[in-house]
Amino acid sequence: MVSSLYLSIMIALLGASGYVGSKFVEVLSSRGLKSCGLSRTELDYADASELRDWMRVKRPRFLINAAGYTGKPNVDACEGHKAECLMGNAVLPGRIREVCEELGVPWGHVSSGCTFSGRRPDGGGWLEADSPNFSFRSQPCSFYSGTKALGEEVLEGAIDCYVWRLRIPFNHEHTHRNYLSKVLNYDRLLEAENSVSHLDEFVGACLDCFAKGVDYGVYNMTNPGAITTRQVTDWMLEEGLTEKNFDFFEDEEAFMRDAASTPRSNCVLDSSKLQSGGIFLRPVEEAVRSSLRELKLSSSTVGV
Amino acid sequence: MVSSLYLSIMIALLGASGYVGSKFVEVLSSRGLKSCGLSRTELDYADASELRDWMRVKRPRFLINAAGYTGKPNVDACEGHKAECLMGNAVLPGRIREVCEELGVPWGHVSSGCTFSGRRPDGGGWLEADSPNFSFRSQPCSFYSGTKALGEEVLEGAIDCYVWRLRIPFNHEHTHRNYLSKVLNYDRLLEAENSVSHLDEFVGACLDCFAKGVDYGVYNMTNPGAITTRQVTDWMLEEGLTEKNFDFFEDEEAFMRDAASTPRSNCVLDSSKLQSGGIFLRPVEEAVRSSLRELKLSSSTVGV
Repeated sequence: MVSSLYLSIMIALLGASGYVGSKFVEVLSSRGLKSCGLSRTELDYADASELRDWMRVKRPRFLINAAGYTGKPNVDACEGHKAECLMGNAVLPGRIREVCEELGVPWGHVSSGCTFSGRRPDGGGWLEADSPNFSFRSQPCSFYSGTKALGEEVLEGAIDCYVWRLRIPFNHEHTHRNYLSKVLNYDRLLEAENSVSHLDEFVGACLDCFAKGVDYGVYNMTNPGAITTRQVTDWMLEEGLTEKNFDFFEDEEAFMRDAASTPRSNCVLDSSKLQSGGIFLRPVEEAVRSSLRELKLSSSTVGV
Repeated sequence: MVSSLYLSIMIALLGASGYVGSKFVEVLSSRGLKSCGLSRTELDYADASELRDWMRVKRPRFLINAAGYTGKPNVDACEGHKAECLMGNAVLPGRIREVCEELGVPWGHVSSGCTFSGRRPDGGGWLEADSPNFSFRSQPCSFYSGTKALGEEVLEGAIDCYVWRLRIPFNHEHTHRNYLSKVLNYDRLLEAENSVSHLDEFVGACLDCFAKGVDYGVYNMTNPGAITTRQVTDWMLEEGLTEKNFDFFEDEEAFMRDAASTPRSNCVLDSSKLQSGGIFLRPVEEAVRSSLRELKLSSSTVGV
């Protein structure tokens, strides 16, 4: 009897082997939460009937979709894999919605703030009530951003569903997906202003949404505030992480000409809706600086 | 040995049970061409590995994709089935492209002219070289049109691939999909100018593209010219098909308010590229009037 009770509070995690998904695995485990992580090689969860059958057997109490199609090494690659990009970012959320609504399972979808560009006309960050301005419906956009915006359209009106917008994940771990590692390693940088998400805090906040019973809906899950690339490189120098003489593109036009084949989203998001729900991420400077200090420590330790 | 030779000129047909697919079945058969029609219940051809395995066994010489997601009873229904609409109209063509290119099989995709609205600024019909102006990238659009335009984006640069744009199919058969039956049966009509495709001629022309070795690429497959709804109702009265007093919406605004939940494409396409390839459909008035005469005959016969 106890074991079936335990089963009933299991959390299902789709895309468990990815950059975001593996952080969910880690944080769920650290919180002592029973979860079942799935990757596409184990179950074709894009097939609604396979997902439905699996859910009926496992009976998760909550589902997290951390799966999606991101280009490798960056969004430029999505331009050459359009069908898979649409499948992973727009069709898959719809299939999951269908199954979760049928079985009455609440769930959360890892979306992205990359469907916005710049700031609101009033100078503030974009709100959840604003329509994307960097999507197929509001050009220009990358194919990747277009599909993420369609994914959110597919989820409009979804029942018992969180749409968590992650934006430029970073933390204290040296990986090629960590924004701070990218800034450190790229030959030349683009000066831009962005809201960003500390990955571990993002994942913790997603789980808190469910744990605390925050209202379902769309949330900008970024550390409050915004940073510019130049601020980050200055902080890197100040924190003693590097003595690198950072090189910047002259402007976005030079970046597009020399380094990118599709435009990039750079945007500021307003995260006050999440705060109103009682969930708080650290102010962005504090989160970035503490990550830089930890990166410095681990660099010294492993001799990177 | 003869049977394997016959196998090698087999034509594979996806979506064989649909309105367009079943016409392909009929015309292929009437031309004595060996074909193998598939519906999703027989083979999940949206799964690239299943399609690939099937193709390796059957070895078709050509493939026709007549499958796609159209809302029932009309495109309004697509607004409530966005994921499946994206899957059928944008992801599926990409999966087929992947398999056909890998196996070196030429193919044709039934697309739609519904990604355009009105006429070119110069007054002519839209050309294949023009970008859609009724799509996610060029608002307004219906979700259906948006996905059809994405499907064509997914096929940009495809090898040995025809993209055949069908537009408002009609013919001499009483069915709920026949445009002429719709005009006859709707309580109230929207006056609009459109290019339209005689379904049997469309299917014949698609097969001719392959048979005659017309260059691969995108083709507007409409009967030359354009019609207005009012012309069609006048011809119906003239041909003695009906004595109905046709009722029209005051304007498009009234139509949108009273009868539709998403905007409709009404557009004129230029079909001269197909003609340059040596393939000719009858002028639109001739094709419509002859269909009306046949409809009248079959109505008298069956007492409809």
